[in-house]
Amino acid sequence: MLLGRVAGTLVSSRKDPSIEGLKLLLVRTLDLDGAETGQSIVAMDAVGAGVDEVVLLAQGSSARQTEVTRDRPCDAVVMAIVDSWEVGGEERFHKYRAAGGEA
Amino acid sequence: MLLGRVAGTLVSSRKDPSIEGLKLLLVRTLDLDGAETGQSIVAMDAVGAGVDEVVLLAQGSSARQTEVTRDRPCDAVVMAIVDSWEVGGEERFHKYRAAGGEA
Amino acid sequence: MLLGRVAGTLVSSRKDPSIEGLKLLLVRTLDLDGAETGQSIVAMDAVGAGVDEVVLLAQGSSARQTEVTRDRPCDAVVMAIVDSWEVGGEERFHKYRAAGGEA
Amino acid sequence: MLLGRVAGTLVSSRKDPSIEGLKLLLVRTLDLDGAETGQSIVAMDAVGAGVDEVVLLAQGSSARQTEVTRDRPCDAVVMAIVDSWEVGGEERFHKYRAAGGEA
Amino acid sequence: MLLGRVAGTLVSSRKDPSIEGLKLLLVRTLDLDGAETGQSIVAMDAVGAGVDEVVLLAQGSSARQTEVTRDRPCDAVVMAIVDSWEVGGEERFHKYRAAGGEA
Repeated sequence: MLLGRVAGTLVSSRKDPSIEGLKLLLVRTLDLDGAETGQSIVAMDAVGAGVDEVVLLAQGSSARQTEVTRDRPCDAVVMAIVDSWEVGGEERFHKYRAAGGEA
Repeated sequence: MLLGRVAGTLVSSRKDPSIEGLKLLLVRTLDLDGAETGQSIVAMDAVGAGVDEVVLLAQGSSARQTEVTRDRPCDAVVMAIVDSWEVGGEERFHKYRAAGGEA
Repeated sequence: MLLGRVAGTLVSSRKDPSIEGLKLLLVRTLDLDGAETGQSIVAMDAVGAGVDEVVLLAQGSSARQTEVTRDRPCDAVVMAIVDSWEVGGEERFHKYRAAGGEA
Repeated sequence: MLLGRVAGTLVSSRKDPSIEGLKLLLVRTLDLDGAETGQSIVAMDAVGAGVDEVVLLAQGSSARQTEVTRDRPCDAVVMAIVDSWEVGGEERFHKYRAAGGEA
Repeated sequence: MLLGRVAGTLVSSRKDPSIEGLKLLLVRTLDLDGAETGQSIVAMDAVGAGVDEVVLLAQGSSARQTEVTRDRPCDAVVMAIVDSWEVGGEERFHKYRAAGGEA
């Protein structure tokens, strides 16, 4: 899976009927330090992610293994919102601290 | 999924019978600013996209999840025509404004 | 899908029984100008392509969606021979003109 | 498959129900000398791997072929812990020697 | 498919039960001149390949289409040992000549 930050949203009115009603997110991928890698991807949303949230993406046929994406022409899905991660015992990202909160 | 702009079309008379009648598009991939990335891909068309339109592509086995591509040797499909997208609350692409229209 | 030019052929006598009788092609991939990208791939042949022909390749599980490759350990198949393509209304490749013919 | 070293763990409370209870690992990929390649990946854990362990990862639909990941939106799984490997008859990595042990 | 040269072997005692008994090979990928590309991959062995042999690899779900890898978390398989290949009518690799033999 990939780490990413939701950057925006995309609108399409003419599309394959199978993706009607699905929300399309623009996501910038992140490295283990939480820095942007320079790559981006369009993903369908399975968890109600909002702009600026840090998320986890599944790609390929695995992107079709959520309830909302099953049997859709979907090769990338946001399937989790990330709370935090640590590397070598040290916290590298925390949802609330990253946002400047005190949680 | 990937963003792309339809660059052209491809003709083949000798091909696997399973792809008879399918339209083959040449697509240049785009980044979140709508700029070309330098990569291109050949995709089958599921939505009647024309040259210069900005589209959304699904790849891999997910490219076979539209009605026209099911069970075909198709690893990339144009499955939506993009109206607009925004990044950080700011519009980065709009179908009509990009074309110099007033919509 | 990818554009490619057939560069050569490969022979293997000790192989998985499931690929007995299949023809293995060496293919150099091409960009939209018909220039080599520097990448190459080994593909199975579903259409009787010969050396120097410009072809279309499907990859991944989609490479198993032709009659000859079904259920084989095949992740790339030549599934069409390209006649011509155009970009922005201008012809970039034509099978006979590329070969110096007058067709 | 890829070689990797487990770098850390990731926590998510809002996620697709299908991945409830699965452990998410951050993994840095390694080359044949055991050096980090600069790439990283988030993988689900099928073998109880701990931080700093050297592991083997399967990707794509193959990542769903373990008991814990079947039918999950999982595109990368840690499915083995590596004891050792050799290249050209010479040991390049050994689990205990790498850790400074005498085994 | 990819061309590769078997570089070594890997041992794992703690692993997903589904891969018990399978041989894990370290493979360096090759270009059409038989030169190493700098990339490597870990693959399961379906044909009894030995160190230094030049082989053909299938990746992705296609890697599970051999008898030994079916339904395993395997995303790369050595499914043929290469005898020879030619590019532009000229031999670029031959198993016995490469080894300094006279066959």
